[in-house]
Amino acid sequence: MSSSDVMVSMHHKALHLLQEDANKIEKLIEVQMENLTTRKCPLYEEVLDTQMFGFSREVDFAVRAGLIPVAAGKDLLSRLERNLAQLYEALNPKG
Amino acid sequence: MSSSDVMVSMHHKALHLLQEDANKIEKLIEVQMENLTTRKCPLYEEVLDTQMFGFSREVDFAVRAGLIPVAAGKDLLSRLERNLAQLYEALNPKG
Repeated sequence: MSSSDVMVSMHHKALHLLQEDANKIEKLIEVQMENLTTRKCPLYEEVLDTQMFGFSREVDFAVRAGLIPVAAGKDLLSRLERNLAQLYEALNPKG
Repeated sequence: MSSSDVMVSMHHKALHLLQEDANKIEKLIEVQMENLTTRKCPLYEEVLDTQMFGFSREVDFAVRAGLIPVAAGKDLLSRLERNLAQLYEALNPKG
């Protein structure tokens, strides 16, 4: 493998891992969305916030390590943040 | 640069970044150790726990991305955990 092949392969791997982790959080959000009308788990917000914090640290590290571009990191995070915001809106509807 | 040079350079960079982050937490622990007798900040433990969690996610990601060996990740974390344990012991001395 050439050096640029190695880089491309490491970047792919990093992005794939981050996407997997993002999917796990996504799944947590979906589950809570589906259970909106049945029951609320009071710890859900806390768990999601913690997971989001951990994920943002992973993404930040990947960017600093030169594994993914800044924009790719921002995309991953803002997508999750939008979904989270929708969940919170659904959990706490305004009057 | 050869492909193995690229790998070595990425591994160095990753380890260096993690070491920097570990040093920041180390610093937080030191500051609290120095202030043991003067004043306790009740949020300190929470802040340190959060920082440790974020750091463990970074380390875990670096290992999974093939940037650092499992053993190096464990070393980074266990060193900090030992220092944290010392701080907590000093904060909560047994009768």
